[in-house]
Amino acid sequence: MAKRIVIALGGNALGKNLPEQMAAVKHTAKAIVDLIEEGHQVVIAHGNGPQVGMINNAMVTFSRENPDHPADPMSVCTAMSQGYIGYDLQNSLREELLDRGISKPVATILTQVEVDPEDPAFLKPTKPIGPFLTRQESEAMTAQGSCVMEDAGRGWRRCVASPRPKSIIEIETIRALLDAGQVVVACGGGGIPVYKTTGNHLKGAGAVIDKDFASELLAEELDADTLIILTAVEKVAVHFGKPDQRWLDRLTPAEAEGYIAEGQFAPGSMLPKVQAAVAFARSKAGRTALITLLEKAKDGIAGKTGTAIAL
Amino acid sequence: MAKRIVIALGGNALGKNLPEQMAAVKHTAKAIVDLIEEGHQVVIAHGNGPQVGMINNAMVTFSRENPDHPADPMSVCTAMSQGYIGYDLQNSLREELLDRGISKPVATILTQVEVDPEDPAFLKPTKPIGPFLTRQESEAMTAQGSCVMEDAGRGWRRCVASPRPKSIIEIETIRALLDAGQVVVACGGGGIPVYKTTGNHLKGAGAVIDKDFASELLAEELDADTLIILTAVEKVAVHFGKPDQRWLDRLTPAEAEGYIAEGQFAPGSMLPKVQAAVAFARSKAGRTALITLLEKAKDGIAGKTGTAIAL
Repeated sequence: MAKRIVIALGGNALGKNLPEQMAAVKHTAKAIVDLIEEGHQVVIAHGNGPQVGMINNAMVTFSRENPDHPADPMSVCTAMSQGYIGYDLQNSLREELLDRGISKPVATILTQVEVDPEDPAFLKPTKPIGPFLTRQESEAMTAQGSCVMEDAGRGWRRCVASPRPKSIIEIETIRALLDAGQVVVACGGGGIPVYKTTGNHLKGAGAVIDKDFASELLAEELDADTLIILTAVEKVAVHFGKPDQRWLDRLTPAEAEGYIAEGQFAPGSMLPKVQAAVAFARSKAGRTALITLLEKAKDGIAGKTGTAIAL
Repeated sequence: MAKRIVIALGGNALGKNLPEQMAAVKHTAKAIVDLIEEGHQVVIAHGNGPQVGMINNAMVTFSRENPDHPADPMSVCTAMSQGYIGYDLQNSLREELLDRGISKPVATILTQVEVDPEDPAFLKPTKPIGPFLTRQESEAMTAQGSCVMEDAGRGWRRCVASPRPKSIIEIETIRALLDAGQVVVACGGGGIPVYKTTGNHLKGAGAVIDKDFASELLAEELDADTLIILTAVEKVAVHFGKPDQRWLDRLTPAEAEGYIAEGQFAPGSMLPKVQAAVAFARSKAGRTALITLLEKAKDGIAGKTGTAIAL
């Protein structure tokens, strides 16, 4: 039965430079087109950790030599990363579809995601981004509204918060394309983080939104049947890496929350994936979140592998 | 009467750094929303000269310090520039629409534009881009397939061709959104230049497509009524800057071609605009190309000013 599926793809899986990315997207496209070939509607969201780090580094380096060009805010770097990644990703999807005789438009939507300026994450930016800064650069960035932090005694770096996504600004565009039978790449890097200020203005936030939480929200707003969170393991495990390690096949949101409370999942790694999966499964009966490997997505949708969370 | 309009916006009008861009897009949005408010369907294409130059400079500078990160090809820099510009442009359009009580989604579509690898422009790349290079960098870029040229005896720079656009890869996406009543930003920087290689693969080209020609093709493929090419003067003139200067109100493609043959329009400036306007006007009866100032777009559509070219 045809499902509406949101796929959350990791930024690390896309490689750390362009040649790596171009190889990675080919591989990724095959697994995604396997799902499209079965008749499923697919939206792809992706991370941008290494890519936005590189772009941020490049922009800081450039602004050092060009004083009339202040270093671009994090939101702008994420916007650029959506172009940097989306171009290769949509291209490889298009090629793989055509290679299988499927004529379906593929498009990347520049996506802004709203965050709450009162999100407590802004009080404690935790993600160091970009190169080490001189004192002068640190001061200039602070004056510009960016946060800087000392990184393990090695010097100062820009750092950003990771607030929760509240709404997807371009959701009507994504929905219209999906309804028209198109394949959509959206919410790249978790989306360009923005918040509402006075009137109708959206201001870029010095933040990076977790792509798993953004994908979860996207799946809810699109009324998707399935959220697939891709990761480096076929299934989620409890007691991971210990003698009593146990792979999980299917669990309820309540069971997953029990494991979360036990501290079974590593923060910044499996924890946000399980949290996002729980949120999606709990949002409506009939919704399933699946955590698995890219190569196992098709078997996972068929119920053959992966860790499925559903009511 | 409601028209379908493609607007070609100059990259120079968008400023040379982010603060300038943010001011420019506000101003631009007002003029564009004036047209939307009158009921017209609008697609915005834009140039990226200063922006893609900046991004290319930043990427070359970065790759100098990071040997594992080869300088990104021009096509990738254009993809990034679509994010860099589209983010601010769509945001200011959204804000201006909401400020006037118009609820209409706005979206930026990452757009690839096909060029012909046999286009004679590739034999003579003419546009120097980015910083001066060392001999080693020049050689590395040549090995990578980029062209380098000596720039007026001052050193070597990357240079790119400006081939004609043949087709717009994401046209079905742009059309679907326009049909759904959405406002679309597309073909940024003239589009990411790609060409077909073996099978269904699209390969990035070391090129920059003229945004006026890309906008003209976009207008044809969308069956638009009007192509507005914005420029720094209210009307096109013959004998420009001379005692017998004369502003042109309305002319046929044949009349415009006569002036082109006389060498009335400066290459790289007014000439491509008039050429694109002629091509659009000639493509079908009832189509009008308008060349005017941003601030005069509304009056131009009403027939009050600008230079209109139509059969």
